[in-house]
Amino acid sequence: MSSGSRLDAYVERYAARTRGMTASEIRALFAVASRPEVVSLAGGMPNISGLALDAVADTIHDLVLERGTVAMQYGSGQGDPTLREQICEVMRLEGIAAHPDDVVVTVGSQQALDLVTRIFCDPGDVVLAEAPSYVGALGTFRAFQAEVVHVAMDSDGLVPDNLRAALAAVRAAGRRAKFLYTIPNHHNPAGVTLSRDRREEILAIAAEADLLVLEDNPYGLLGFDEAPLPALRALREDGVIYLGSFSKTFAPGFRVGWVLAPHAVREKLVLAQESATLCPPAFSQMAISAYLAGHDWQGQIKDFREMYRQRRDAMLAALADLMPEGTGWTRPSGGFYVWLELPEGLDAKAMLPRAVTNRVAYVPGTAFYADGLGSRFMRLSYCYPTPERIREGVRRLAQVLETELELHATFGETSGLGPAHEEQPGLTAPGPETS
Amino acid sequence: MSSGSRLDAYVERYAARTRGMTASEIRALFAVASRPEVVSLAGGMPNISGLALDAVADTIHDLVLERGTVAMQYGSGQGDPTLREQICEVMRLEGIAAHPDDVVVTVGSQQALDLVTRIFCDPGDVVLAEAPSYVGALGTFRAFQAEVVHVAMDSDGLVPDNLRAALAAVRAAGRRAKFLYTIPNHHNPAGVTLSRDRREEILAIAAEADLLVLEDNPYGLLGFDEAPLPALRALREDGVIYLGSFSKTFAPGFRVGWVLAPHAVREKLVLAQESATLCPPAFSQMAISAYLAGHDWQGQIKDFREMYRQRRDAMLAALADLMPEGTGWTRPSGGFYVWLELPEGLDAKAMLPRAVTNRVAYVPGTAFYADGLGSRFMRLSYCYPTPERIREGVRRLAQVLETELELHATFGETSGLGPAHEEQPGLTAPGPETS
Repeated sequence: MSSGSRLDAYVERYAARTRGMTASEIRALFAVASRPEVVSLAGGMPNISGLALDAVADTIHDLVLERGTVAMQYGSGQGDPTLREQICEVMRLEGIAAHPDDVVVTVGSQQALDLVTRIFCDPGDVVLAEAPSYVGALGTFRAFQAEVVHVAMDSDGLVPDNLRAALAAVRAAGRRAKFLYTIPNHHNPAGVTLSRDRREEILAIAAEADLLVLEDNPYGLLGFDEAPLPALRALREDGVIYLGSFSKTFAPGFRVGWVLAPHAVREKLVLAQESATLCPPAFSQMAISAYLAGHDWQGQIKDFREMYRQRRDAMLAALADLMPEGTGWTRPSGGFYVWLELPEGLDAKAMLPRAVTNRVAYVPGTAFYADGLGSRFMRLSYCYPTPERIREGVRRLAQVLETELELHATFGETSGLGPAHEEQPGLTAPGPETS
Repeated sequence: MSSGSRLDAYVERYAARTRGMTASEIRALFAVASRPEVVSLAGGMPNISGLALDAVADTIHDLVLERGTVAMQYGSGQGDPTLREQICEVMRLEGIAAHPDDVVVTVGSQQALDLVTRIFCDPGDVVLAEAPSYVGALGTFRAFQAEVVHVAMDSDGLVPDNLRAALAAVRAAGRRAKFLYTIPNHHNPAGVTLSRDRREEILAIAAEADLLVLEDNPYGLLGFDEAPLPALRALREDGVIYLGSFSKTFAPGFRVGWVLAPHAVREKLVLAQESATLCPPAFSQMAISAYLAGHDWQGQIKDFREMYRQRRDAMLAALADLMPEGTGWTRPSGGFYVWLELPEGLDAKAMLPRAVTNRVAYVPGTAFYADGLGSRFMRLSYCYPTPERIREGVRRLAQVLETELELHATFGETSGLGPAHEEQPGLTAPGPETS
């Protein structure tokens, strides 16, 4: 087996951007968190066990038999025209009116982030992003050497005044933000949703500042309580680039996401896609297209919603029952994640080895900040484990917190296993309100 | 419908690299060349009509039924471990001994080009590449703002002395080449193969100059005459990054290619892949893995070879029978392409509208040069049309050449439809020898 400790003979040849490519804290966790004895509240894998495999198998069988020489051939760089029409139907559920010609299919919405960043960001360019932000987006911005300026949220999502302040600070520094990256619905990792009123206000601020908005919306159809709020793109066509995905509403293994962009931007995205992959996988696209055409996909999403609602309920109940005083958390109305704030003096990253020893995993908050903040926070996912396992995981986590609090009360330090930890004044992350 | 002529309101916001993203000459051709009355000798689409669709359909049906929740879930950023083992079996056919841990699966080998260029090339870095070179590679190098320095070939492939001279010129300019990009087998577009002796010599030059070699080998198993020559990576492990693909030996619609790289480089490639897509499509990978495990894939490649050999024969016979004097072409021993040199005074790009009017399409040689050379050359593909259509296409093309030659003899100009064409001294492309 190869060893990671070999010297890198190529180190002097890499591009400058390669220095920004480092293993994420989530990635290092995957190996331990996937052991069966560990309750993983770390991953963001959707639970697709509810899919009717026999029906999907039949659909794809017929696709190969009837249109296999098209599905297995190169396709268009922009993506399959029929699927792009169906994507417009999907987006209509969140109030978006769009033309299939303005949609570009991508290899998951992660690749959409990659292509948008690629065409807009020179090294040193500023990207505004919520605090905290999706770890995969931060990785892509870093890979293109963009500089992230975080904008704080509260329980109603991005705070308009904080966006105004961030824009003013960027302007005062003689710089210009290339875009605002935001997840308005059921935020990853914060578990909050941008309120209806704020949507208009954020868009007005962006229009005033001539700021592009990059709206990432993988969880919009997974709200538990009521009809989805209108997407930002539904409220404003110009200046909004919208990212969607089938990974959470159907299945991620096909890697099919999309970008809806103003026409000129769409042309650049197609060129970038051709340079990156020639074309996204025709087979994946036609499989999803056939699934959408032949199955009650909206009924399936309803089933997913109900399943995730039960898991959210299980997690919130367990947190309320078991967490020590001084712990706060958000109350998501959809999606996969709860954002948890530790009692004062505890550090989620330093505590992680002890948690894994106690057979529970989470993602430390620092993964979701470009600037090292977030150490008192963690992301808890309720999407994948059963309600029973979720409760067991929270119970184990609460034990760890209790032990850490005792240690802290006795010695003023939080972790015996991690590196020695000092209180660092000023490192209080501007995260969403928890209570 | 949207129109391409709208003003681009975002033009001032794009990254510098976006200026290098322009529609390729091949892309503009796709629309016309796909009309049924046109014989397209332009595209590089493999002919997959020989695949047993019913057997593939059954294989994928069982995959969904038996392992659907894995195949439709997120996978590893490096790629499916079983498939990576099978990829090592495939590479063994060309003499390569490799460990699955050093393989990274990519979204077609185009994405392998993208990831390798991404981790190695800063703006302005030099890449050495054959003259001519694969148009998709040139597009990717341009998208990362690398500067291509071409190295001439002859009928035995890359000429060692020319590589020495190019290295000396780059060094004399105070610069360093990041890597040599080469297609040793059945070159796209030149249709030539690097001879056995030259493989050792090219590798010795590269080792002496501490030059990385990027070996792109989509056609290695599609040789018509004898066993494949050893891959460059088979002759030298260190300093060679190898790219492979299932697009031509099975089917391109799954978009599965791979990189075999030295361990340290492999680690960077996985990080780049995670940033680009999180992970390549698990479904595609497991479908190909199941195909390789359950079918006589080597027999299928043999069938493909025989089919392409017949088409190569049809094209070479038609060219010999029909082309006017003064026309030259390469004689490929495998792969998809013939590289044709026009009689003096003719210009393949200027002539193209007339050819399409006469219902035949090709790719002008200029598409395969980073520097505007190649106007007297064209790429003819024999992979997709039937032998009869190939002969008909060559007949139509020969008519166009005859007409152009008459016009040239009469007026000294080559095209009435293209822009006015002047003889441009010095613009003789250093392509492979034709005869």
